[in-house]
Amino acid sequence: MQIALLGGTGDIGEGLALRIARDTDHDVIVGSRTAEKATDAADEYESRLADRGHEVSIGRAENPEAAARGDVVVLSVPAYYLSDTIESVADELEGSVLVSPAVGMKREDDSVHYNPPGVGSVTELAANAAPDSVPVVGAFHNLAAGRLSNLDADIDWDVPVVGDESGPKRTVRQLIADIDGLRALDAGGLANAAEVEAVTPLLINLATNNDGMHDLGVKFW
Amino acid sequence: MQIALLGGTGDIGEGLALRIARDTDHDVIVGSRTAEKATDAADEYESRLADRGHEVSIGRAENPEAAARGDVVVLSVPAYYLSDTIESVADELEGSVLVSPAVGMKREDDSVHYNPPGVGSVTELAANAAPDSVPVVGAFHNLAAGRLSNLDADIDWDVPVVGDESGPKRTVRQLIADIDGLRALDAGGLANAAEVEAVTPLLINLATNNDGMHDLGVKFW
Repeated sequence: MQIALLGGTGDIGEGLALRIARDTDHDVIVGSRTAEKATDAADEYESRLADRGHEVSIGRAENPEAAARGDVVVLSVPAYYLSDTIESVADELEGSVLVSPAVGMKREDDSVHYNPPGVGSVTELAANAAPDSVPVVGAFHNLAAGRLSNLDADIDWDVPVVGDESGPKRTVRQLIADIDGLRALDAGGLANAAEVEAVTPLLINLATNNDGMHDLGVKFW
Repeated sequence: MQIALLGGTGDIGEGLALRIARDTDHDVIVGSRTAEKATDAADEYESRLADRGHEVSIGRAENPEAAARGDVVVLSVPAYYLSDTIESVADELEGSVLVSPAVGMKREDDSVHYNPPGVGSVTELAANAAPDSVPVVGAFHNLAAGRLSNLDADIDWDVPVVGDESGPKRTVRQLIADIDGLRALDAGGLANAAEVEAVTPLLINLATNNDGMHDLGVKFW
């Protein structure tokens, strides 16, 4: 499949690009607001993968072109850019599955709190902002960007997946399963996204308060 | 220490009673609204432990007497009984650490959702209901009662702990560490309780939607 990572130049986009390119047969397309930023990031990812013996070609494009090419389009942008990003690519999403990993959080003193939008969760916000014909799946909310983008770091994390349509959800679960060290779990419909997203501030609070814990993910059993 | 489990006759109280009695040097006191129910449960727990070669004496009392004897008093009652239970034992809590494991949830269709009280979390509700001089610590929110009370089941779960006072929090963390298969993690102050509590409906939704997964707990790493 073609996996387009909108905002693929940083944070979780970086780690997903590197690991999808390294671990799977899918093609990665790094999207950004400018072609130049997309090219810089894709070149850097290719170089880092080549240094580890992985000769992989990584696509690069402005977000709308990346979205047009993607079978799966991941919105790896901060929550406050989510609606604008969807709007900027809305005409290019036909036939794609849109994936929302963003979480709304607010910092208070030395803690981070879940701060969902009025609709209940950022994932549901993405579903509302997307064209009606484009299925939205929530996934990748609880991945620590730092460890994900460190290819020397082993990961063994669960990825709860939410969505209202079984076909698109299956597609995203398969993509997750193709990445080494990630296990996809079905967390139910989009209405269950809030409980998934709320894990992310918890992970940050645990990392803040426990010596030796950082870049945390989660495992359910 | 003396560990009083108010509502220790069922759900999470059962598993905590059995495992604290089996794994630690602490004394367990099963509290209930009637002395008869407390006695029936304590007798049954003693018998189940004896069947496994653990000759342990388990205390039993009505909730107020159990609270009076407890160094640590665990409110192992459903969220909707929490305030009434605290009120019924408020005069007996001086010098104790009060532990709140309850989570507010609501069921909608085939999903479960986090449903916190207006104050933000059930743990903070307990803190507000408790006498000012009694420290409240949130813990044990994410334990699956079924697996916890099955002494043949191995567990390897994390227990995020929230509280605003370091001494009482340390006491509860030590109790947790004394139970085989549980790891206490510091999740920060009481204001962070909501993100901890919200994991519980997620665990239920994951168990509902994934074949072969049930009685789930969580591990952070």
